[in-house]
Amino acid sequence: MQLTILIDSGSSETLQNQIIRQMQALIRDGQLRPGTPVPSSRELSKQLQVSRNTVAEAYGHLLEEGYLCTRRAIGTFISDTLPEDAIATRTNPMLSRSPSHRRAVNLPLPYTGRGLPGLHRPIDRALSHDFSLGKIDPKSFPDKTWRRLTLECLGGAAERMSEYNDPAGLPQLRQLIANYLGPARGMVVSPEQIIVVGGCQQGMNLAAHLLVGSNTPVVMEAPCYRGAAFLFESYGAKIIPVPVDDHGLRVSALPAQGAKLACITPSHQFPTGVTLSMDRRLALLDWVCRQNAYLLEVDYDADFRYEDSPLPSLYALDRSGCTLYMSSFSHSIGPGLRLGYLVVPRSLIRAATTIKALIDNGQPWLEQAVLTQFIREGSLLHHLKRIRHTYRSRRDALIAALQRCFPGSRVTGAESGSHVVWRLPPDLPPADELKAIAHASGVGVYPLGDSPSWFHEDYPECERILLLGYTLLGEDQINDAVERLHAALAKGDPSGPASLEP
Amino acid sequence: MQLTILIDSGSSETLQNQIIRQMQALIRDGQLRPGTPVPSSRELSKQLQVSRNTVAEAYGHLLEEGYLCTRRAIGTFISDTLPEDAIATRTNPMLSRSPSHRRAVNLPLPYTGRGLPGLHRPIDRALSHDFSLGKIDPKSFPDKTWRRLTLECLGGAAERMSEYNDPAGLPQLRQLIANYLGPARGMVVSPEQIIVVGGCQQGMNLAAHLLVGSNTPVVMEAPCYRGAAFLFESYGAKIIPVPVDDHGLRVSALPAQGAKLACITPSHQFPTGVTLSMDRRLALLDWVCRQNAYLLEVDYDADFRYEDSPLPSLYALDRSGCTLYMSSFSHSIGPGLRLGYLVVPRSLIRAATTIKALIDNGQPWLEQAVLTQFIREGSLLHHLKRIRHTYRSRRDALIAALQRCFPGSRVTGAESGSHVVWRLPPDLPPADELKAIAHASGVGVYPLGDSPSWFHEDYPECERILLLGYTLLGEDQINDAVERLHAALAKGDPSGPASLEP
Repeated sequence: MQLTILIDSGSSETLQNQIIRQMQALIRDGQLRPGTPVPSSRELSKQLQVSRNTVAEAYGHLLEEGYLCTRRAIGTFISDTLPEDAIATRTNPMLSRSPSHRRAVNLPLPYTGRGLPGLHRPIDRALSHDFSLGKIDPKSFPDKTWRRLTLECLGGAAERMSEYNDPAGLPQLRQLIANYLGPARGMVVSPEQIIVVGGCQQGMNLAAHLLVGSNTPVVMEAPCYRGAAFLFESYGAKIIPVPVDDHGLRVSALPAQGAKLACITPSHQFPTGVTLSMDRRLALLDWVCRQNAYLLEVDYDADFRYEDSPLPSLYALDRSGCTLYMSSFSHSIGPGLRLGYLVVPRSLIRAATTIKALIDNGQPWLEQAVLTQFIREGSLLHHLKRIRHTYRSRRDALIAALQRCFPGSRVTGAESGSHVVWRLPPDLPPADELKAIAHASGVGVYPLGDSPSWFHEDYPECERILLLGYTLLGEDQINDAVERLHAALAKGDPSGPASLEP
Repeated sequence: MQLTILIDSGSSETLQNQIIRQMQALIRDGQLRPGTPVPSSRELSKQLQVSRNTVAEAYGHLLEEGYLCTRRAIGTFISDTLPEDAIATRTNPMLSRSPSHRRAVNLPLPYTGRGLPGLHRPIDRALSHDFSLGKIDPKSFPDKTWRRLTLECLGGAAERMSEYNDPAGLPQLRQLIANYLGPARGMVVSPEQIIVVGGCQQGMNLAAHLLVGSNTPVVMEAPCYRGAAFLFESYGAKIIPVPVDDHGLRVSALPAQGAKLACITPSHQFPTGVTLSMDRRLALLDWVCRQNAYLLEVDYDADFRYEDSPLPSLYALDRSGCTLYMSSFSHSIGPGLRLGYLVVPRSLIRAATTIKALIDNGQPWLEQAVLTQFIREGSLLHHLKRIRHTYRSRRDALIAALQRCFPGSRVTGAESGSHVVWRLPPDLPPADELKAIAHASGVGVYPLGDSPSWFHEDYPECERILLLGYTLLGEDQINDAVERLHAALAKGDPSGPASLEP
């Protein structure tokens, strides 16, 4: 610890006094907080290039005054109870030379984006049964394998932590992702096209930095993910909302001209859960091509497809080189990993790599190294198969329980992903009321309006839609939760079918 | 592995043929590459919801044609040698429906920033003695401690990897950084003001996203770090270069009005290594305040101060709340960690936290968790003390060797940091020539013009300046390197003082 004490050897003040006065100021101003250890007199004398005696005497004085205290065999610390005058005056004499005493109250703030209190809620521990969105089950995390691979990788830590790695990502990881995308998503890509990023949000940011400027018209699905819309707005985008129906984005409602970018979630639309149909995929690509625009495909939840085969990605269908493809490992391994990848068309490789270097110069080495081994040894495919199976059973249990307890429920968006859209039957109260009743009995359910979505006000019957994530709960818990909800509703509403009140 | 095969049960084509045709297409198009394993017939039949026999027969057909091969007891794979017709026609029948066959050649690219081939050169293994900049000695990495702490932290991995953490950083880490900044840099800050970022580059990006828009005038030191200047340009900034002399930024040369942001490296100016004097610090703050502008203080190399005490940071001296302070652990622990922190004034807490959530939603959990423990148990202070000692000895050895072998050398920027500026004595050739001679004998030295700096053309005698990083070499190696260089110069230039040629 080096202290910000300045010795002026030309001053008429003794060296000892200079140290005392400045230490007092540091303590008074809170820069040295109670309980903080101070350097040994030997250390400080070396730093200040004064004799050890001078420092020892200054320390002695401060000890006497009560600014410092010693703990035997440990060292010297700032006192927990300071002399009263220290608390009385909180001005730093070192700073008195500063001419800038005015407080600049009208500083310009060019960024005027929307505030958002956090895109992802923390887990609500008060709920015994939580159908929260975008979480993954800690029990599904491949704990043992991850630990083993981390230990293996740490063997090379000294070398690899000590240098800057390729800002676009570890070459082997990019190669393995390219290999994966062929069979899994129908995409023929070379490793150079892959930029390793810190999750979907950062991939979208990279695309935005590249393609969106002040007043750039950007097409978004309505409803869409709020984190994407606000991000584009923070670059000055003009958002053009285009409605989503049961087949995904209504391509016929796209603007005839002017759009420069469209951001789409085709595999499992957020938040409605619908899959963009093949006809619409082709029509969308045709539109993008005619516009001379770019398409940003956010392949949200694509790893979890439960019925038939995944459709080829828009990237795979695109013949015009206008699609950027984004995916992440947040839903398959965990959001704490902060790893994903953006695939860019060949024409954008140089620009995207430059931007990645400029905005953060690459992801941390260790996570990338561990993920590389995880994919290489086949553990990722194995893990995906295992959790796909788990999530499918949970989804089935949820749908069955809803149909059993609440006949007439319409559940959509269940073909893939990690949440379903529950359209409430007419005899149930609106989503907001139902949420309050459910939360009171420890069951977390989430109205569309509460989710991190945007432009949902015009979505048909939006106030009668709940989003239920089914990744956190086992099948028995899911049954329990739906039955609890049913009981709570019956209790609250005497006309309910299974009312306990006579 | 789920394949992108679509079964049309209403088609007149048999199910088996549909599978064969689409598998052939995936192989022809390169989506399934030679050597890739295919799903078992059981797995694929489940995915496609067709009988296992149908898949087995389709596989049998593809095996016969040579598209697939089996390896006993392992599984079925794409053949390494494909039937000739597969290589002949590379068109995917699945894609033939796409109307977008045109290639969009004139796609707009709003981003027109400068390309840069990588901000940091990889270590040149051909050099036996490398005075490269911005590297850290792998031997100085706290290997054992880091391994122990990583293992400890991994105990909580399943929980913490499965959720989104606070985008601004782990609360404990932010608290510990706030505690550190008091005594070390004279700064009184609360944890809310600290945003954990992925290194200096990302911290500057966060500040830029917040404060820089199209045509925003930004003051930069001349010369300065190229990665900073190009980053601001990528947001549309108008860069105003202000020259640096032996006392740092020439504050008297600052523009009288118009600037909205000034980006400064006061502790150890990059690349000149000078420390901004106290008078200039106060004058700069006064100027910023009068401009109603912001100051971004990049506290490059502040952890390594070898003579007397570190000066208080600009943030500590600022009374007007206009300073953002950036520091990172890249030089103290390692750049592969990708961790640093941006301290924002109270008025920017909300905006900065929002931007961090929007641009990448936070740093990975594990690195933050390990660093938290590393600081908490006192290992960071211990580590800093140790490498400060090591680097000081290396610096001393370098200066002594230069003075001994090349009398008349002026070495500046040595009070702190991890590199010195060597101003060549008149009897030596210009920096570029000297570099070539040195590299030929395995010694890496770097002319100012080769460093990742900008606006250095007008710096006095810029063609006679070499930057020497002294972190990678031990004291003996440093002596060796300087002597080698001396010998090489003497050999190349018969008039040299220690010429070996008569």
